[in-house]
Amino acid sequence: MNVVSQMKLFMEPKSVAIVGATRRTGPLSFNIVEKLLDFGFEGKIYPVNPEADQISGLKAYPSAMDIPGPVDLAVIPVWERSSIPDLVRQCTEKEIKAIVVVGQGFADADDEGRALQQELLGIIRGTGARLLGPNSLGVANPSKGLCTAFIDVRMESLPIGLICQSGLFFGGLPASALLGKAIDIANASDIHFAEALQYYEDDPETKLIVLHIEGVRDGRGFIEVAHRVSRKKPIVALKVAKTEQGAQAAQSHTGTLAGRDDIFDAALKQCGIVRAGDIDELADLIKAFLHLPPMRGRRVGIVSISGGAAIMAADACASENLEVARLSAPTEEGLQELSPQWMRATNPLDYWPIGIHSRKSAPEMAKKGVRDFLADSGTDAVIHVPGYYPPQDVSRIAKDFVHVSEAFPEKPVCWWMSGYHAKGVIAEFESQGIDVFPSCERIARVLAKLHQHWQFLQSD
Amino acid sequence: MNVVSQMKLFMEPKSVAIVGATRRTGPLSFNIVEKLLDFGFEGKIYPVNPEADQISGLKAYPSAMDIPGPVDLAVIPVWERSSIPDLVRQCTEKEIKAIVVVGQGFADADDEGRALQQELLGIIRGTGARLLGPNSLGVANPSKGLCTAFIDVRMESLPIGLICQSGLFFGGLPASALLGKAIDIANASDIHFAEALQYYEDDPETKLIVLHIEGVRDGRGFIEVAHRVSRKKPIVALKVAKTEQGAQAAQSHTGTLAGRDDIFDAALKQCGIVRAGDIDELADLIKAFLHLPPMRGRRVGIVSISGGAAIMAADACASENLEVARLSAPTEEGLQELSPQWMRATNPLDYWPIGIHSRKSAPEMAKKGVRDFLADSGTDAVIHVPGYYPPQDVSRIAKDFVHVSEAFPEKPVCWWMSGYHAKGVIAEFESQGIDVFPSCERIARVLAKLHQHWQFLQSD
Repeated sequence: MNVVSQMKLFMEPKSVAIVGATRRTGPLSFNIVEKLLDFGFEGKIYPVNPEADQISGLKAYPSAMDIPGPVDLAVIPVWERSSIPDLVRQCTEKEIKAIVVVGQGFADADDEGRALQQELLGIIRGTGARLLGPNSLGVANPSKGLCTAFIDVRMESLPIGLICQSGLFFGGLPASALLGKAIDIANASDIHFAEALQYYEDDPETKLIVLHIEGVRDGRGFIEVAHRVSRKKPIVALKVAKTEQGAQAAQSHTGTLAGRDDIFDAALKQCGIVRAGDIDELADLIKAFLHLPPMRGRRVGIVSISGGAAIMAADACASENLEVARLSAPTEEGLQELSPQWMRATNPLDYWPIGIHSRKSAPEMAKKGVRDFLADSGTDAVIHVPGYYPPQDVSRIAKDFVHVSEAFPEKPVCWWMSGYHAKGVIAEFESQGIDVFPSCERIARVLAKLHQHWQFLQSD
Repeated sequence: MNVVSQMKLFMEPKSVAIVGATRRTGPLSFNIVEKLLDFGFEGKIYPVNPEADQISGLKAYPSAMDIPGPVDLAVIPVWERSSIPDLVRQCTEKEIKAIVVVGQGFADADDEGRALQQELLGIIRGTGARLLGPNSLGVANPSKGLCTAFIDVRMESLPIGLICQSGLFFGGLPASALLGKAIDIANASDIHFAEALQYYEDDPETKLIVLHIEGVRDGRGFIEVAHRVSRKKPIVALKVAKTEQGAQAAQSHTGTLAGRDDIFDAALKQCGIVRAGDIDELADLIKAFLHLPPMRGRRVGIVSISGGAAIMAADACASENLEVARLSAPTEEGLQELSPQWMRATNPLDYWPIGIHSRKSAPEMAKKGVRDFLADSGTDAVIHVPGYYPPQDVSRIAKDFVHVSEAFPEKPVCWWMSGYHAKGVIAEFESQGIDVFPSCERIARVLAKLHQHWQFLQSD
């Protein structure tokens, strides 16, 4: 079986066995059978527990071998590590080819745990089965109602494919929900980044791949696959364990050797993987690569209700090696006609005095500014700092601005909204298709990465 | 009159004249008379407008000289710059000693504007009047119901004193409300940072001073005052116009010469001013210096529901030159007794496997971890990454944790909550007194600055 077919058993199973399912139910029972039912999993669910007749209303089997039909995926949610090899053996005897091991205390722990992890690999060797984990929450696929995590997970259906080494991301980090598909490779004893990447590579439901990396075992294999995949779909990565203190902590989390960060950083760049420096940036990059076009150059237009904000935006651009765009003469002249005589209309544009002078409303001036800046061949992107808008006008104003942006699909437009903008107003703008970020610094970081990715795609 | 008495005329006036008040009313009328009435200003309000009999129900006067009683503060909200010198002259003839000039087009604009700004200074010279602005929204003092801004402002009453050069901060940046008192020095033709700082220096309502700086004119005077004040109250500063692109934009905003950023940075450090690198950090530092104690050393304890989060927190600490604390043997032994045999209970602490093994609930284990880490003489602060808590339990759990922290008042405790934590749950924890931040990176930045300030206070 090729790796993609094998990964489909994990991600698109028709039947799932929970081998060692708990009989407890309700909050904090960590009952995966119950959770699969709650998520509305479409396929068959087989609880396996020698001491139960049924679990959550489903017939339970004493062992995996007793399950009548074929089983695509087995999840082993048992904490006592010494009992896990026998359960994996059961699964291989049942000829299950995709196995998730949830329990901890393997390569993430002591010598005995490392030996146990090797034992698991020995059991699957030659059987055609592949193993996800140990120490893994398994997989999630919202379009199939599939989530094997024993914790509470809120799933959305964005076209994102996540590969992570910590359950934290099933819990929704950096958003407040699992945004798309997910594969928790955790200790990565068998299934590693390369295999998981190949599943997403041609998956039509996945437009953006997000990685949480503690360490990579087979560097060369990873680079080969990642380099190929990132030409098809953007890959954004949060590489942690980047300091000695972090690497020490990683050793006891997934048993990973984190490697030297500068080498890792160079490898990610070489693969065209866009690296997020922290959790905030990961959230921003996910938003940006889902919604915004590539940035084709470094020249930014700044259209701001506030001169103070314009300064900060210019600073932020400079810090990310972006330029404050030089506008063409006709663009400046058109804006100058509306401006008080003492003001020079240029980039960055503080449109407040223009509005006062020309008696135009703030959204009217803002829209003209954004449109003129986008139309100018000297800009590659626009940062907009909007004024205060009454909540009842937001929906209409947002639609107007989306219309303006749509006329220039090759240039990213980012709004900086914080401070006087109520959270409800921001959410309403976002729901209408405006790409809002909480600070100009975070916008500049995002634009720089959009440009970096564009350069990668242009390179041979 | 000494500078503090003069500043009190601005900040605690018994009577305010709006010289050049508009007759328009309602949304976007920028009617300061109306806004003062809305805010519930306690003192007298005198609208001045030669073409109106009354404004917003108050008798209007043809000129400032016609006002019957004494006037502490005048605000001139007129846009036509050429008419402003006459209005300032009116104010000085009425012997008003505190004058806010709102209009733009002075040193922020062209040669004529620079000359006009000099003319204003000439008019007040020798009269005992001081001028705030031009290009200023004026002042805000929530405890007096005073806000001279013509824009909509939502005021809270935290013990914060803001000095800014942009109305953006009256609009609430970096929060969604003006958090305390505020002085917009804007072009800073006369009243500058040093004067405003002296008002807050011994003001009993101010515990924390926040600066937004585009540039400083009298560097030596600023340093002298700031160095003295920052020993009494923490001063947090966002210095913008730090790049050449930003400095160019500042030139046309407040006419400020921004200066070399490295020199500025050194000067701020020398004064004991804590510098925020960006808007997010400014928000974090305001929260930290209002709520948290100084951090006396560099040693951080990390108590986390997630091993993955613990790695990120350890990374974040290392990046800010903080140490992952080494715990004493008794602390580790006490935790080891509850842990699975394969796990080494240490710092960072991943308390999830301990909870599973010892059958303790997550809040119970978390509380024990945080308490033990705080009690250990090897830590100077604790970062806590909580698990998922059902909304109905949050209030009780929060109270328990606040109780734990209160027993160790000399050590900051910061919670990292994002991802699976719903915004409502986070807000509830915060309202109960838990100090929550959205990422471990932001916590580490905050802790490093709390320690930096502690070192400043310890130095001679």
